[in-house]
Amino acid sequence: MLERYALSPMKELWTLEAQYERWLSVELAALEALEELGEVPPGTVQAVRAKARIDVEKFLAAEREVGHDLLAFLWVLEEEVGPEGRWLHFGLTSSDVKDTALALLVRDALDIVLEKARALGEVLVQRAKEHKRTVMLGRTHGQWAELTTLGLKFLLWYDELRRVEERLRRAREAISVGKLSGAVGTYAHFPPEAEARALEKLGLKPCPIASQVVSRDRYAEVLFALASAASLVEKIALEVRHLSRTEVGEVAEGRPEGSSAMPHKRNPILSERLCGLARLVRAALGPALENNALWHERDMSHSSVERVLLPQTSLVVDYMLSRAAKLLRELWVFPKRMRENVERALDMHFSEGLLLALVRAGMARKEAHGLVAELSRRAEVEGRSLREVAGADPQIRALGLDLSAIFREERALARVEEIYRRVLGE
Amino acid sequence: MLERYALSPMKELWTLEAQYERWLSVELAALEALEELGEVPPGTVQAVRAKARIDVEKFLAAEREVGHDLLAFLWVLEEEVGPEGRWLHFGLTSSDVKDTALALLVRDALDIVLEKARALGEVLVQRAKEHKRTVMLGRTHGQWAELTTLGLKFLLWYDELRRVEERLRRAREAISVGKLSGAVGTYAHFPPEAEARALEKLGLKPCPIASQVVSRDRYAEVLFALASAASLVEKIALEVRHLSRTEVGEVAEGRPEGSSAMPHKRNPILSERLCGLARLVRAALGPALENNALWHERDMSHSSVERVLLPQTSLVVDYMLSRAAKLLRELWVFPKRMRENVERALDMHFSEGLLLALVRAGMARKEAHGLVAELSRRAEVEGRSLREVAGADPQIRALGLDLSAIFREERALARVEEIYRRVLGE
Amino acid sequence: MLERYALSPMKELWTLEAQYERWLSVELAALEALEELGEVPPGTVQAVRAKARIDVEKFLAAEREVGHDLLAFLWVLEEEVGPEGRWLHFGLTSSDVKDTALALLVRDALDIVLEKARALGEVLVQRAKEHKRTVMLGRTHGQWAELTTLGLKFLLWYDELRRVEERLRRAREAISVGKLSGAVGTYAHFPPEAEARALEKLGLKPCPIASQVVSRDRYAEVLFALASAASLVEKIALEVRHLSRTEVGEVAEGRPEGSSAMPHKRNPILSERLCGLARLVRAALGPALENNALWHERDMSHSSVERVLLPQTSLVVDYMLSRAAKLLRELWVFPKRMRENVERALDMHFSEGLLLALVRAGMARKEAHGLVAELSRRAEVEGRSLREVAGADPQIRALGLDLSAIFREERALARVEEIYRRVLGE
Amino acid sequence: MLERYALSPMKELWTLEAQYERWLSVELAALEALEELGEVPPGTVQAVRAKARIDVEKFLAAEREVGHDLLAFLWVLEEEVGPEGRWLHFGLTSSDVKDTALALLVRDALDIVLEKARALGEVLVQRAKEHKRTVMLGRTHGQWAELTTLGLKFLLWYDELRRVEERLRRAREAISVGKLSGAVGTYAHFPPEAEARALEKLGLKPCPIASQVVSRDRYAEVLFALASAASLVEKIALEVRHLSRTEVGEVAEGRPEGSSAMPHKRNPILSERLCGLARLVRAALGPALENNALWHERDMSHSSVERVLLPQTSLVVDYMLSRAAKLLRELWVFPKRMRENVERALDMHFSEGLLLALVRAGMARKEAHGLVAELSRRAEVEGRSLREVAGADPQIRALGLDLSAIFREERALARVEEIYRRVLGE
Repeated sequence: MLERYALSPMKELWTLEAQYERWLSVELAALEALEELGEVPPGTVQAVRAKARIDVEKFLAAEREVGHDLLAFLWVLEEEVGPEGRWLHFGLTSSDVKDTALALLVRDALDIVLEKARALGEVLVQRAKEHKRTVMLGRTHGQWAELTTLGLKFLLWYDELRRVEERLRRAREAISVGKLSGAVGTYAHFPPEAEARALEKLGLKPCPIASQVVSRDRYAEVLFALASAASLVEKIALEVRHLSRTEVGEVAEGRPEGSSAMPHKRNPILSERLCGLARLVRAALGPALENNALWHERDMSHSSVERVLLPQTSLVVDYMLSRAAKLLRELWVFPKRMRENVERALDMHFSEGLLLALVRAGMARKEAHGLVAELSRRAEVEGRSLREVAGADPQIRALGLDLSAIFREERALARVEEIYRRVLGE
Repeated sequence: MLERYALSPMKELWTLEAQYERWLSVELAALEALEELGEVPPGTVQAVRAKARIDVEKFLAAEREVGHDLLAFLWVLEEEVGPEGRWLHFGLTSSDVKDTALALLVRDALDIVLEKARALGEVLVQRAKEHKRTVMLGRTHGQWAELTTLGLKFLLWYDELRRVEERLRRAREAISVGKLSGAVGTYAHFPPEAEARALEKLGLKPCPIASQVVSRDRYAEVLFALASAASLVEKIALEVRHLSRTEVGEVAEGRPEGSSAMPHKRNPILSERLCGLARLVRAALGPALENNALWHERDMSHSSVERVLLPQTSLVVDYMLSRAAKLLRELWVFPKRMRENVERALDMHFSEGLLLALVRAGMARKEAHGLVAELSRRAEVEGRSLREVAGADPQIRALGLDLSAIFREERALARVEEIYRRVLGE
Repeated sequence: MLERYALSPMKELWTLEAQYERWLSVELAALEALEELGEVPPGTVQAVRAKARIDVEKFLAAEREVGHDLLAFLWVLEEEVGPEGRWLHFGLTSSDVKDTALALLVRDALDIVLEKARALGEVLVQRAKEHKRTVMLGRTHGQWAELTTLGLKFLLWYDELRRVEERLRRAREAISVGKLSGAVGTYAHFPPEAEARALEKLGLKPCPIASQVVSRDRYAEVLFALASAASLVEKIALEVRHLSRTEVGEVAEGRPEGSSAMPHKRNPILSERLCGLARLVRAALGPALENNALWHERDMSHSSVERVLLPQTSLVVDYMLSRAAKLLRELWVFPKRMRENVERALDMHFSEGLLLALVRAGMARKEAHGLVAELSRRAEVEGRSLREVAGADPQIRALGLDLSAIFREERALARVEEIYRRVLGE
Repeated sequence: MLERYALSPMKELWTLEAQYERWLSVELAALEALEELGEVPPGTVQAVRAKARIDVEKFLAAEREVGHDLLAFLWVLEEEVGPEGRWLHFGLTSSDVKDTALALLVRDALDIVLEKARALGEVLVQRAKEHKRTVMLGRTHGQWAELTTLGLKFLLWYDELRRVEERLRRAREAISVGKLSGAVGTYAHFPPEAEARALEKLGLKPCPIASQVVSRDRYAEVLFALASAASLVEKIALEVRHLSRTEVGEVAEGRPEGSSAMPHKRNPILSERLCGLARLVRAALGPALENNALWHERDMSHSSVERVLLPQTSLVVDYMLSRAAKLLRELWVFPKRMRENVERALDMHFSEGLLLALVRAGMARKEAHGLVAELSRRAEVEGRSLREVAGADPQIRALGLDLSAIFREERALARVEEIYRRVLGE
């Protein structure tokens, strides 16, 4: 089911092979630390490393027999390695190895996601610059509002992306911890000094304190950061879908898909797919938080949830960021259509300017609001521009307003440069 | 429905009165900034401030007529203030005022929550120190595992609380932003300089860029931080429930509730209630993320969701943190029962030590594992301690192991001080 | 927070007064049953009924003292009633009363919701009939597809509404159960015969078996039925929002709301609000299902969740159905604009007909598909109708197709009557 | 990730092969119907059926080229079949085929799940009968309450299972519909008569009305029914976890798993896993409901969600039901331990009987409640049975209560037979 959304190298990360490799890395790092501290005989690590082999099929076969994945892994390794193999896992509990290895996987997954986020950022900045002055109607409540530019949309997403990246980096930090403190986290059989050494080799920090497992609030933070990335992609994709509606026609997916029945169709199916995937990603947060409150020093209910949701969410968010970048990179933009739509707005996007000019001229705001609303209705009904209708209105004429200053596009967009500087710092 | 979980001052924060006060603060700050920049006549602010009054009933009556809450608010104020009132809201759109005011409310709510978190932290540290050496069975999978101390549980929660507090502080920072940039965020009628001044008066920062509204990813971050606090309280409450089961009997709620039918009962209903409330809180995350992807420059679908979930979640999390502190402060602890339970464990909490001693003595790990499992079964069936059974085993005797070193509580808990130092930094 | 969405009589249902009334009804029904069976002295019910009074403040004051809401309720009643009051609650546990009373509340809430659903159905049928032949463009993927009629949209919603009503009726049946079987559901002190009599008086059925409480899967079914109603309203509201976009302009909310900044705006804010509320409602399903797996014969974690979510969801769904009916009743429809949009489609909504005619004429489907796609592109680029472009195409001419039969609106909509008959059965 | 939870034949159902087979079935059924109605030349179906082959790799290769899965499927088939192939998909749109085929898959999935539910029901009834009289402590709020029997727990679950089965059957009915009504559901190119014939061949009913797709409320109902099944399994598994806690020790998983560190452990990991999986399943409800409100006659955002969640939820619920049956079938029950725990309760499970006897004897309920609470405390502190303490109490002695009738197990469980008859109807 997920194959469609699985990209390399994220795909390779969530395989049994990759998992066993990290289990072995953790076991070896722990053993090395013990050897350095004189807790196991010199030469043990070298002997073990020389003979330990990752053989997925063998591990799985052993697991079917033993009924415990990590025990099976150990028995196979011990048999392969010979006598020195008995030192493997010395003083450790399964979760020491599994949780520490899982941190390695999730950290790597976040690195891949961060790289995709960076690439999306590049596209956003590039297209924001390109369309800084591509004027179009802003829309609120699905109704034409005031003028904006296409570039500002890209820029807004870029600004949000930076918050997403910050969340991803924090989540990466939160999850870059291991624990080698034994069955209930008391270091009863594995000393903190060895933990510190072993984790350093793996690029992780020790949890200041742990139960049998690393606290699952850290995983919830990871999933929230990923969901926040998915939410941004949804926002982008939703905008593309809206702007590429036939009636709007201001953008189109670079490679819209056809229809089996109606040969004339060009459907923004990538954007639609991205919106759907966001639903999937945010649904992971409930289970992620349910996973946090375990029984006493640990129960195992979190495990099946994570086995499914960590790969799934990583894969999907990786796909979403990657495809969002592609979507925007290849997006067709139709400035001519944007201009046509602006023309169809009959100057009503300047209604607030007119209202404020009336207030400046001394009219009560409520009265001014009523007058401009009335003029707008008239303009709409008669199909004339608001400027024209306002220019003909006796009350407005009596006030001698400078309509050319009010109905001026340059003025409406005079601050665009400044916004760009604020966001891009240039 | 929520009255039960509404504590002061959080309760007062989520009233219409408090909302209108903040709307007025924003309008006044904006006006003041305009006046400072010479955009409105000198003296306007003073005139407006002197006459503007918060009158909830009047605003509501006007809203029933006008059908738009902020317009109604403005018309009432304009009428009260007289001519200068027309400058109110000059260059602003409703969301400028509402979103900026909402940021003030949420920031204040987070300050209250942070204060409750701090207070919970104090209790946790105090009880952690008190029970540093209160020995008890650790339990994994609901099964007796190795020894731990009650203090370590408090300490673990304290460690997680610090991450929760960090998330709350970040969320506070993320939400402490305003926007006074108009209908589509282009500053068409309100200059960035005025925004900067106005927001500074309110203690907020400007969004680098905004649409009609502040991006809702910031609110999602707030709700996640709150859910993460609720999740910790759930974890604490779940442990209290488990430890106060009749069969375990190691703690009890300070004021357990009785039963209408069974006079002998003492039910941990506060802890149960806290577990239930955590479900409520985490359910807010789906809607919070759905709220982020709005149409174009904004649609209003997020508004009804926030109107319910922001107060509800703030109130509930405030209540949860507050009650969790009380729960732990008043928690009855029964060290005697903990010791009895340890005695009933027949030394099996030392089984790993025995296993490792066998490995050290040269036995293959798999073989050692099998032997200790076998001895444990025998101990259980015969109701004798594992030490006794092991001491009588020919294989073990042959190896001449020092059983007194293996079956020693002090050794199991030798690292407790060190863990405390790591967490408390003392 | 919820006042805005609270309509009578649903609002009155979720008050403390209404709750206590139902508690008393259950206590009295139980007592009456016991008296009928000779388990309590004759005349007890009459004596109790004569003196028992609902006094919310008094109950709350007692609860603050006793710390248990139902015990407080009993002690107050017992004091009021005098000696016969000791028979109140005889053989019952708190949950017997609370769960049975809650069933009464939820059943009444569902009756209100069902009535609102019925009223929405009336509007749907009426508007469906009115617009059976109001021709408009169908749209898939936001792209113009083939022709449809506005009436078919109403009819589709009506069809879904019938499923929603069926779910609500089933949920009503699922929840119309009580239990008066004591602390662990064994009828240790209250006989099944008395339960049967008491529940019959209340219009409920006995659970075939219960623990201390009625199983919470029944409540989850209620919340799903309500969420399914909310989902239909969301679907309706979303369509209104899309069709009332400025660019589409085919419908408008009867009373669209204005903007504080832009006097020309007419925003479909009711529809937007309804979409937001649907998010709120569906978020109740997670907690509802979490509530089902309680500890042993019962823990109390479900209680706080239900205290919030049952009233909230009932109120909101009641509001949504009620407002959806109003929205559609008052909806402005612009058939002229629909026709204009059809004209703008350049006959491309007939592309499939052309494709099939080519297949009928012997062309391979793939080839035909390519040809029609090509002709559509040409029509679009040249701004000519597909019919015109097709008519000029040598390949098509060579096949001698009857284009007037293909490009015919009547044919596209020839089955509308039949669909109506299928749904309305007329 | 899901391989661990994928059982045959559910596993085979969610493969590309099975999907393509159903696509072909739908295309052939539609073609056959057209041929029967004389809409395509006689012999077409036979010619197509003879040559159409499912070749997953070929379809995928074509999709990579065409970028549309159903178009690719058609082009490959058309090429294989030759000229008659052009009639494939005549008058249909992709969703006609995909949605109708998906209904076939989901219906089959529900049949598998229903069979698993039936098998679980058998185990429940069998074990309920076996343990009808296995007396144990009931527990509420984690505290010992009154007596119950183990059989009643099984029976309660069986009662809930019947509701689950009913929901599954209704969902099966709700989803057993197809639609062959074209691009916007108007039967513009495929007649309702042909739809009726084609769907009958497939064992489906026509939707009374459809847009481009079958309404997604039907899928939400399916996912709710599945989540309700998962919730029951969670309830069962949670009970097993609680009863197999070391301190309780009343049951054990037939094959509990060991620990890599602590050879003495026997962990109920299957039950824990089942609890985790329930979190996963219920998280599907949010997305399922979000999928319902699509744009106009359809957008494609639901598709990616369903591609993941339908297989995942089906597989997981199938696994859960299957493993729950196994769990209960192999569950070790320790009646001796149950009896020991009852003994440890010091007769306090009879406290309500004592209370009621006092009320019967004329004591005010509040007073009686206080007295029994006091006696219970004394019994607990002194480690004597409540009966003994009560027998020695002057107030009680004065009333001359028949304590032997009150403290009698047979009386407490006198209604068990009747409950069994109500549930099992025997």
